[in-house]
Formats: sequence, C-alpha cells, structure tokens
Amino acid sequence: MRILIVGAGGVGDAIAKIAATRSFYEAVVVSDYDVSRAERTVAWITERHGAEVGARFATSRIDASDPDAVAAVARANGITHVMNAVEPKFVPSVFAGALAAGADYLDMAMSLSEPHPTDPYTTTGVKLGDDQFAQAGDWESAGRLALVGMGVEPGLSDVFARYAADHLFDSIDELGVRDGANLVVRDDDGNEIFAPSFSIWTTLEECLNPPVIFERGTGWTTTAPFSEPEVFEFPDGIGPVECVNVEHEEVLLMPRWIDAKRVTFKYGLGADFIGILKTIRDLGLASTVPIRVRSAAGPVEVAPRDVVAAALPDPAGLGPRMTGKTCAGTFVTGTGKDGRPKAVYLYHVADNEVTMRDFDSQCVVWQTALNPVIALELLARGDWEGVGVRGPEAFDAVPFLELMAKPVAEGGYGQPWGASDR
Amino acid sequence: MRILIVGAGGVGDAIAKIAATRSFYEAVVVSDYDVSRAERTVAWITERHGAEVGARFATSRIDASDPDAVAAVARANGITHVMNAVEPKFVPSVFAGALAAGADYLDMAMSLSEPHPTDPYTTTGVKLGDDQFAQAGDWESAGRLALVGMGVEPGLSDVFARYAADHLFDSIDELGVRDGANLVVRDDDGNEIFAPSFSIWTTLEECLNPPVIFERGTGWTTTAPFSEPEVFEFPDGIGPVECVNVEHEEVLLMPRWIDAKRVTFKYGLGADFIGILKTIRDLGLASTVPIRVRSAAGPVEVAPRDVVAAALPDPAGLGPRMTGKTCAGTFVTGTGKDGRPKAVYLYHVADNEVTMRDFDSQCVVWQTALNPVIALELLARGDWEGVGVRGPEAFDAVPFLELMAKPVAEGGYGQPWGASDR
Repeated sequence: MRILIVGAGGVGDAIAKIAATRSFYEAVVVSDYDVSRAERTVAWITERHGAEVGARFATSRIDASDPDAVAAVARANGITHVMNAVEPKFVPSVFAGALAAGADYLDMAMSLSEPHPTDPYTTTGVKLGDDQFAQAGDWESAGRLALVGMGVEPGLSDVFARYAADHLFDSIDELGVRDGANLVVRDDDGNEIFAPSFSIWTTLEECLNPPVIFERGTGWTTTAPFSEPEVFEFPDGIGPVECVNVEHEEVLLMPRWIDAKRVTFKYGLGADFIGILKTIRDLGLASTVPIRVRSAAGPVEVAPRDVVAAALPDPAGLGPRMTGKTCAGTFVTGTGKDGRPKAVYLYHVADNEVTMRDFDSQCVVWQTALNPVIALELLARGDWEGVGVRGPEAFDAVPFLELMAKPVAEGGYGQPWGASDR
Repeated sequence: MRILIVGAGGVGDAIAKIAATRSFYEAVVVSDYDVSRAERTVAWITERHGAEVGARFATSRIDASDPDAVAAVARANGITHVMNAVEPKFVPSVFAGALAAGADYLDMAMSLSEPHPTDPYTTTGVKLGDDQFAQAGDWESAGRLALVGMGVEPGLSDVFARYAADHLFDSIDELGVRDGANLVVRDDDGNEIFAPSFSIWTTLEECLNPPVIFERGTGWTTTAPFSEPEVFEFPDGIGPVECVNVEHEEVLLMPRWIDAKRVTFKYGLGADFIGILKTIRDLGLASTVPIRVRSAAGPVEVAPRDVVAAALPDPAGLGPRMTGKTCAGTFVTGTGKDGRPKAVYLYHVADNEVTMRDFDSQCVVWQTALNPVIALELLARGDWEGVGVRGPEAFDAVPFLELMAKPVAEGGYGQPWGASDR
C-alpha cells in the first residue's frame, strides 16, 4: 500500500503522525498546496520516530482543486490509496483525480449539498455525497473502492451503527449520532477565551445548512437550522450538553446499508456556541459571497466567512491552550436481541492531554485522523475489501473495533470504546 | 452665515435637508469625499423645495482627513461655519481646517479617546475631546467658536442638563443620559431582521471602549464595558429597555459647566444587542487592526470591523424598512427648586414614519441632524454667542428649547420635547 495524503492541515498532519506508529504500508506521501506544511509534518515524524521511519514519508506540492494535478502526483508516486484530508469543497477534484490515477480513495467528509431552491427547510436539494454516489458505477467498473465518510463523524459513528445492527439489536428505532465535548481554551493569563476547536468555516457550513433527517417510508427530509434541541448526557465526565440537528453525512450513509426507522445527527454545540453561530448568521458574516470592503490598499472583495475564520485562532494550533475531552458516538434505540426495548450509546472519547503528549495534535483533530488510519490498515490486511462508493457501515465493524481497542503492546491502537446502556 | 457641511452621509444629508426648510443662512456647501453623495442631497432639496431653495446649496469634493483641504474648501466658499458630519476619526483634521480658515466649527462627536495603557477599566487614558480642549486657547485667541458635541447625544442631552440646572433643580445628584428605542427593521417579506439603526462601526467604538463616569471629588473614572445594567422606562410607548454604561461625550462635557454629584451615559441597547456586540468582540471582529484574509485576488489585509460594517445594511438606507420611535434624553435627580427630592426625565422622541415622510431620513439619523441646525440658527440670530471650545451646556438652554418646540407655522421647528416626573 502506497498512500497519498492530500492536505497537511490539522487532520492530514495527524493522519501521518498516527500512520508513523504503524507498519502496514510501504510509503506515505504527505502533500499540500503549501509544501512547507507537509515538510513540517515529516520533520516531526523523523524527529520523534527516527530516520528509518521518516524515510517512509515523502512530501509533495499538490493543487487539490485540479483533478489532473491530483492524478499526476498519485501516478508519479505509484499511489494505491488517496487519502483526502482537505476541505470538503475539494472532494470532487480529489475524488476524480484518484479514480483517474487508478487508486482507491478515502475521505472524511462528502461532496457538498445544495439547499432546495424553494423549500429548503422541508425538502432536500442536492444531498451530501449525491455527486459521489452518482459516480458509483464508474468506481465499480474500474474495480476501485471509494470509502467515503471515514473520519470519526462520519466514520467511527457509522462503524458503531453497523456494530449495533449486527450484534446488539433485532430492530432499530433510531440511529442518533451525538457529539459533545467539555473543551476549554485559555489565554496566556489562564482566562477562558472563545476559540472553536474545529474549523469555524466548516462548522458554519454544517450548522447553517438545513439539517437532514431520515425516516423509513418518508426518506430524507430537512428542517430549519438548530432544530429539535435536546440535552444529551455525555460519558467520562463531560456531562450534559445541548445538542441540535445538524446536516451530517451519517444521515445520508447509514440508511443505505442499515435498516432503521429514523437516523439523525445532533451536534453538542452548547447553548452559548449556538447563540454565537446564530449571531454570525444574523450579521451576514456566514456568507461565502465576497463583499466590497475598504482597506488601506483601496476597496477589496472578501467573503465574510473567510474573515471570521481568519480572525479566530487556528483550531489546529489550540492544543497547548486546551483542556478537556471530546466524545463521538451513536445512540441506538430499538429492540434488543432478547426482544426487549434497548437503548445504548456507543462512543469513543479523546483526551486533549493525551493526544497532545503523544502526537502534538489537539484531540478533535486527532480523533478524526485516527479512524481512516485504522481503515487503511484493515484494507491493507484484506479484512475490509470491496469496490464502488461505500460508507464505513458497508463493512464488518468487528475487526475495526477490535483493532482500535487492542492495546498497543498487542499490535492494536490502544483506543478502547464504550457502550453505555441507557 | 455661510455653512460648509463636511460629509454627506446619513447625518450630513439630513442636516442639509433640515436646513433647506429654514432661511437663517446665506448659503450651504455640501461636501463629501464622494461628491456624488453631496449632489444627491442637493438634487433631493431642489426637487422637494424648488429651484430657488436649491440655488442656496452648492456641492464640493473634500478630503476630510487633510486639514489643508478642508481649509481650502472653506476659504474658496467664504465659509463662516464648518459643520463636521463625518466619522469621529476625522475630528482632528476638520477641526484644524476650520480654525485655519478662520471659521467657527460645530461637530456631533468629539476627538477619540485612548484607553489607559495598564488600567483601562478603572482609569481614564486620553479622554473624548481631550485633544480639542487642549487647543481651546488657540480658538479663544483667534476669537472663534468651536461648539463641540452638538448632535442629539451629545447635544440635545446637554441642553436638557443645562435647562434642569438653571430652572428645575437647586442641586443635582445625577445627570444620567438615557437613550432607547423600539425600532424594528423588516425584510421584503415583512420578517424582522437584525439591522442596527446606527453605524455599527461607531457603536462598537462607543460600546467596547471603557465607559467613563464622572463623580464630584473623584473626577472621571472608567469601568468595564457594559457595566451597571439597568432597565429604564422610556416614554411614548417605547417602554422598558436594558441600558448599560457606554463611553459618551456628555460625561466629559457636562461637568465642565454644570455642578452635579455624578454624570453617566447609558445606552438602551437591549439585552439582545448587548449579546451581539459581546459576540462580535469575542470573535475578534471588533478589531480595527487589519488581518490577512484570502480572496479571489490573493491574500488581502482588512480590518474585521470594516467587514462587519460592510456586511450589514447601510443604516441610512434602512428608513423605508423601519418602524418605531427613538428617544433621547437626560434623567436628572436631585433637590428641586422647592427643596424637595425631584427626579425628571427630559426627552425628545423622533418617529421614523414622520422623518421618512418629511425628509426621506430615518429617525435616528434625522434626530441627530436636527440639533446642530437649531444651534446654527441660534448662532446666526446671536441668541448664542461665544469663543473657544464649548459644549452645548455652555449656552442658555431656553432659546434652544423654545425654537425647537415652537410650531412650524410660528417659525419654530415643531419638535416638542417632554418632561416626565418620576
């Protein structure tokens, strides 16, 4: 297996660092539009793990917006697996470039949605991943696999859903992905500051798009943003967090392979952050349409959302200022194998203190990066195999969860997951 | 009297339109960096009031940041009074240009403050107007008058304070300026939208600077932003609004001419708007320091606050979408002329429906513009006179309030004011 990581931002960097602790592949090429970012990642690996490990990593400049450029880098390096770790807006070009180069493909976010032109808050328009699934035939006939949505959410959450369907439930009422954290960021004086732990650009994209819900019989529908607030109790000391419906890939992926009455995604933003996102929207600052703004060099055109992102600290750099844990998981309700009502939350927690110590990577970014590395290892071992465009729930969950939980000393990733009966 | 209005934004435009209904001056030159804005104002006047009135108005391009340019336009037009209607950051240059041209000067906001470098929330640094008062000697020796802070707040609020001191109170405990409104802005579909009725740039400047408070014996001190919240009951159907301390000129002006134990300014922002301003601050978007932002034309440098302002609708253009009233006034407590405790709110209300109908000017902007026109008329008549740098409370309040309240048919401005005993 020869892996091309496209994008050496927070998640791409962490994927490379996690991969550096494993030996299932022949080589990894870390690539970025700004090659110095890729070089920084490989330099960290060489310093931490030595020259022999570092020698398995190369770097390349890449233009993720150009399928031909992606294919050229993949071909030049004999790549077998393209690991997409750039912003979702580049999914179409990286996806096409991988297929053109005859490589398999993985991503952690799917091709973007477009709201319904007249009824955005009841009816879906172009859905997340529609563009990719429309090309499934091309991937099948080429005998290649696109494993889409293989981060933590989507990704691990989908693996949990498949596990619940196979081993815990006779029938499922709801697959409810629930994500929450108790992360706090402090300034140099120790005062708590506002600094989102994940890209505000992507958070706005997710939270202001109409949330999508799946219901058996009805199919996919949408609601207004921030709908159906609920307080969910997260494990491991995180506690209660206000969650709201958010557009997310799991709702599009799970129903394709798992039978459930209802599939939802709720993001534990907390009441304060929900208020902030609404304010950004109400001020017109979530817009991606450039506006004219005065500057010392005369009028310029900038997208307000880009300014919001630029004004906040880079989430990937927050690790040293952050404390707390982040939790990702799937809350499943229905009828258990014993024929009785059952409700269980399957989850994984990442502690920022640990991910910073071992990987110089903040926990939200690191937790996202962990899962595609495990998936790549399962593909390399042949435990997972297939062709076409497939979600994580299209594969057996057991080898994934076993490899993830097994202690490092025994060849695993040393990342136990939890199951909390409710 | 020959008047030069510097700036044909919302307030400058309304000053010209109000002046067009009066005859106390010989000529008005409306000037702006973008002369088409001045031309639009004069075209409106000519269309509404006829060619004869229009002929008393001329236009000019002006660079308000350059004292020489201001002086040159003033000299070229034989100007006797420079009416500053641009952003407060241009106060120093317009102020200097007027003196250089040998003209009297009026403004509606004073030279800007700078926070104390180490103790901003207890101790004043450079105060509002300090730069202007430092030059008082130059104005006195030139025999010229600078009437500073002559809008509605500061301006009419200061006139009310002087009236209370002269005619209603034996001794004053507190002069508390209180400003509130019940304005609502709607979109084309009639839905209420977020759209501040006053420049968000200036609102952020006022609200995030440390509020200043005057106390007899102690002098001027500062607090943290948004301090001492109180719910104040506004008249004329506006009702209760949450008010907080805000840095404002009245607190610096009133104690120079009026004896009071305490002087404060509280702005009726309302709880929602206070939350929005805090969010803008917490996101780093109130900053006036340029940051690097990506754009289609490559990286550019913009000040986040300029982007916030550019993303919101122009307040001057909101009039047609707005309903409601705005109230400005001074709440005075102390011992009345009868020796008994007394509390009275002296106020003026502007109704957007009326100001739009008569002046195509939204009510907040129009209410600001009304007062300097009245002041100019009093100066033209000789009812007010003086030299040096002086606030509105340095002059007798009675002729001002009489001229303002007198019906139009009797030669007044037809703008009654209220006194509500509490």
